[in-house]
Amino acid sequence: MTSPARPASTTRPQAQTDPRRTPTTTTPPRPKAPSSRTRVRRKPARADYEPETVEAILDEGLVAHLGFAVDGQPYVVPTLHARVGEQVYFHGSSASRTVRALAAGAQMCLTVTLLDGLVLARSAMHHSVNYRSVVVLGQARAIERPAEKMAAIEAFTERLIPGRWDEVRGPTTKELKAIQVLALPLDEASAKLRVGPPMDDEQDYALDAWAGVIPLSTVAGEPTPDERLSEGIAPSPATRAWVARRGSGS
Amino acid sequence: MTSPARPASTTRPQAQTDPRRTPTTTTPPRPKAPSSRTRVRRKPARADYEPETVEAILDEGLVAHLGFAVDGQPYVVPTLHARVGEQVYFHGSSASRTVRALAAGAQMCLTVTLLDGLVLARSAMHHSVNYRSVVVLGQARAIERPAEKMAAIEAFTERLIPGRWDEVRGPTTKELKAIQVLALPLDEASAKLRVGPPMDDEQDYALDAWAGVIPLSTVAGEPTPDERLSEGIAPSPATRAWVARRGSGS
Repeated sequence: MTSPARPASTTRPQAQTDPRRTPTTTTPPRPKAPSSRTRVRRKPARADYEPETVEAILDEGLVAHLGFAVDGQPYVVPTLHARVGEQVYFHGSSASRTVRALAAGAQMCLTVTLLDGLVLARSAMHHSVNYRSVVVLGQARAIERPAEKMAAIEAFTERLIPGRWDEVRGPTTKELKAIQVLALPLDEASAKLRVGPPMDDEQDYALDAWAGVIPLSTVAGEPTPDERLSEGIAPSPATRAWVARRGSGS
Repeated sequence: MTSPARPASTTRPQAQTDPRRTPTTTTPPRPKAPSSRTRVRRKPARADYEPETVEAILDEGLVAHLGFAVDGQPYVVPTLHARVGEQVYFHGSSASRTVRALAAGAQMCLTVTLLDGLVLARSAMHHSVNYRSVVVLGQARAIERPAEKMAAIEAFTERLIPGRWDEVRGPTTKELKAIQVLALPLDEASAKLRVGPPMDDEQDYALDAWAGVIPLSTVAGEPTPDERLSEGIAPSPATRAWVARRGSGS
């Protein structure tokens, strides 16, 4: 993550194998980048174009960052997303000019990043973080069919807390009209990962600085009931299960 | 966070007050947006242009998302950053074409998002997340002076673990040359926050779905020593203090 280099190139991608993952055995070559501009150019050993990897990162991340340009000015805004099959849904107000521009086919980017740890090396320059990220390039499609819009909103709800959809009031026709749901295909998606220990210069291993990884994770705390919650209503089993899975274990 | 609307407008910003924060008392009007395109248009009550708010979010976030465009295609890539005074540093390889374009003054955006909680409402459409985010627009300046470059790398190291700089080997001249450090001024920065309970439609408060907030935080686990660490080297007091502060408390 030390470089803002774009994952793009005009040369043909090479199948990449990560030497750190395959110290003694041979693995089949990884899939190639789905497009030349999707290929990871900086630290290509960190690239992964497997759909399973891309989908797992999109599914684990609770927040995506959406990139688009207006009058030549790039913007990056956080948004909620939900992957369904080979596309990722996001949404906004039907009244938003940006949403309308994206629905009209403006080029965009959607990025999800999971932070897994601080990497403490023996030299300042080799400090890093362990992370898993996905970059999706392309054009979004506006969801107009009410049934697909409804299914997307179900996906937004279910990807937060599986089982939540059946516990809450569903969208009304008026609510559906006020929201614009967009779908970005995963045709041009690439993952980039850093895993493992610090990689120090050989002569630095003799230094006496502690080196290693401090794992980081997103952890759920105790649910805080809304003050207006009627007495006797407890979190559902689905909510409690989610908190337990995401909990600190304490 | 339900909308990817850009924080921009051509109309004059109004001083915003958040009715949720001021149910009974009067607070002074908040500062205005630093530029028209920085003004938060969607859900303006969530906007905050106070430098203290902007700086606190930038300082707490370990990862930033950088936005830029190449041949009309927006890209969003995760990167490490460090705020020093009224600018935020980031870095990349001197050989990167993107870094060179940014150093040459390409328009860019840097966004930091902190996820604070899942907001579970009584209706599907009012599900949300509590978050704090900062969007910085502008043009970066390449850091050429070795002393400033060195100070920036110190800031990158210290913002990960305060005190770490003095424990590790500093950059060599060769290492300094291989890295390009850029500084983005905070002149056009805005924060957007969602805090508090779900905001349900009035008639939905009678529903029997549990509603409230599940707090989320980024938590540090037990440091994992590098396998090549010499025996007898323990994490420094600075590292242990950081882990304790970021720990789960378990």
